[in-house]
Amino acid sequence: MKDTYEIAVVPGDGIGPEVADAAVRVLRGAFGNDCPLRFCDHPAGAELYRQTGESFPQATFRACAQADAVLHGAAGIPGVVHPDGTEAGLDFTLRLRFELDLYANIRPIRLYPGIRSPLADVKAGEIDYIILRENSEGLYAARGAGAQLRGEMAVDTLVQTRKGVERIVRKAFELARASNGAPADGVRRVTCVDKANVLRSYAFFRSIFDEVAADYPDIEAEHGLIDAMAMYLVTRPGHYNVIVTENMFGDILSDLAAATIGGMGLAPSAEVGERQGLFQAAHGSAPDIAGKGIANPYGTVLSAASMLEWLAANHDDDRLARAASRIREAVSAAIEAGLISRDLGGDSGSALITQGLCERLR
Amino acid sequence: MKDTYEIAVVPGDGIGPEVADAAVRVLRGAFGNDCPLRFCDHPAGAELYRQTGESFPQATFRACAQADAVLHGAAGIPGVVHPDGTEAGLDFTLRLRFELDLYANIRPIRLYPGIRSPLADVKAGEIDYIILRENSEGLYAARGAGAQLRGEMAVDTLVQTRKGVERIVRKAFELARASNGAPADGVRRVTCVDKANVLRSYAFFRSIFDEVAADYPDIEAEHGLIDAMAMYLVTRPGHYNVIVTENMFGDILSDLAAATIGGMGLAPSAEVGERQGLFQAAHGSAPDIAGKGIANPYGTVLSAASMLEWLAANHDDDRLARAASRIREAVSAAIEAGLISRDLGGDSGSALITQGLCERLR
Ligand SMILES: CC(C)[C@H](C(=O)O)[C@@H](O)C(=O)O
Ligand SMILES: CC(C)[C@H](C(=O)O)[C@@H](O)C(=O)O
Repeated sequence: MKDTYEIAVVPGDGIGPEVADAAVRVLRGAFGNDCPLRFCDHPAGAELYRQTGESFPQATFRACAQADAVLHGAAGIPGVVHPDGTEAGLDFTLRLRFELDLYANIRPIRLYPGIRSPLADVKAGEIDYIILRENSEGLYAARGAGAQLRGEMAVDTLVQTRKGVERIVRKAFELARASNGAPADGVRRVTCVDKANVLRSYAFFRSIFDEVAADYPDIEAEHGLIDAMAMYLVTRPGHYNVIVTENMFGDILSDLAAATIGGMGLAPSAEVGERQGLFQAAHGSAPDIAGKGIANPYGTVLSAASMLEWLAANHDDDRLARAASRIREAVSAAIEAGLISRDLGGDSGSALITQGLCERLR
Repeated sequence: MKDTYEIAVVPGDGIGPEVADAAVRVLRGAFGNDCPLRFCDHPAGAELYRQTGESFPQATFRACAQADAVLHGAAGIPGVVHPDGTEAGLDFTLRLRFELDLYANIRPIRLYPGIRSPLADVKAGEIDYIILRENSEGLYAARGAGAQLRGEMAVDTLVQTRKGVERIVRKAFELARASNGAPADGVRRVTCVDKANVLRSYAFFRSIFDEVAADYPDIEAEHGLIDAMAMYLVTRPGHYNVIVTENMFGDILSDLAAATIGGMGLAPSAEVGERQGLFQAAHGSAPDIAGKGIANPYGTVLSAASMLEWLAANHDDDRLARAASRIREAVSAAIEAGLISRDLGGDSGSALITQGLCERLR
């Protein structure tokens, strides 16, 4: 337990500053006059790249590495790209993932009461699982390293290592053990998603999954092929408890899963390693709606709650755990009371939602 | 135009033989006494591998290469794998794709009247698009070629070539030109799906897409990131007309899309190159229900109709085109009349459905 925790806040681009600001207000609101968090803003992103040629200053990197946790708004402006065509705004997130070895990307998928799913037959409570995305290798490891020859061909390499697969799979089983099981049958279950039938790197992932699964006889272990899983998340989302998969597949499945709970607006994300954690909503920077007061802060607020839980566990600090659950309750209550942003089918603006959350936290 | 067309039929594993048999009956039914197709069966698959150590005999390969078209049931038995962990049953499809350069995998996605979508707000007619999957390179090109080092790491390589991307993108625009446009707005549209923001091979794919798009000013060209697209196929399927993407992404999106139209049971597939075509349902071999008389033959029957259309175009043979549209009409009529298999929520068996189709073709 610490007296104060240093939170590096990186607002970023588009709606990033608005949602980061909302989350900071809610965090302060959860502690009242006795806030153990100290926030410090740092620049990074596509706009910065446009202005200075640098997307992620070394000083920001150092501040993030040294802080107790990192809270990110969002980053990226379409068209602001590196010479190889990839987006400059994403340097912040992607470099932090790799350089701080934030190997576990935890994406809880939960349908809140008061939110309509685009799926016909599901009700709140019937979708409640975690996608655990490997965040430090896989196809993403090729970023910036692939080859392009005379405009004739381009190559990227998917790498999976024993260490990388083993630790993420182990984390999946630990998460399942700490959970209530799948919503439909209450069974604690880990689903390994791969394409082991076609590619040996995925067969390798699966074989390590099977090895680790043997250490957790109390948890049901199953396999799913990525194509079939894309279908199952639509046809039987209630079956899942913890899903573990390679980086790129995790990226795809987590957006798909978010669609089934009403959209990216309620999809938080925690990216954690042994020493550091990065917390940000799973959505992008939505430059088209920036500055209009209609950005949805819930994803970032929920990510901030995850940050508190992670800090609480790491520093054995119950104050933070209590604040986290109060924030989660405030979010559920606000949504049920109809404080719903446009992207989720309502008409509440960012200020109204943030205020509603702060009132509920008083 | 030819007097007779040689069709190489490869029944395969699981329900493969049942659905292939149904499709052959329906094809014969569509022509009555004057059938210009000659069918010849050839062995391949996981069961053959189990018995003989060979999944895809050279004689079968030759027959497929020389026939006018190839009709496949389905293949694969879980657990029947190569030493690297990948499935032996898939050799047939994957080797044909690569060795006969069947670069275009055409997957029409259509919600039939009488079928319930798992999506809440869609009606028949509102989902009607084509996923055009690059079928000859991308991540699949690594199959059998990736490395695995001392159980410590595994690697697969994603390759995209100018030639490969250019031809599939061009085909996408041609398909859009020949179409009625997207269901929601009637706009002829090609959507390029990639992960250009993160990986240079996908940025390469996109840059070639943009080049080719300039040749088709009459068609709307747009980009979608794979993660966002997984969401959009659930939240706004009516927007799409033709979607073009890399091999692995196409695999994932086409199963997801199939879920939105009721399941894999109504998802046909045509894999074509300059000289040869492979036609099979997009679903797997479902060994658990093999031999029970409940397999759904519609996917294979619709693929057989695609085969006739492809042969008709290649050989300028109107008889085949007419038979194809009669088969499509019979399928629509049978489904609307309630001839619906279990996987689609009905209770009709394979024989009843096949008979129903043949009666409607008389
Ligand atoms: C912003 C981008 C780099 C990122 C990714 O592709 O991982 C995002 O889509 C995500 O899911 O975190
Ligand atoms: C059977 C398998 C090799 C195949 C693939 O992965 O391409 C299938 O899933 C498909 O979609 O055609």
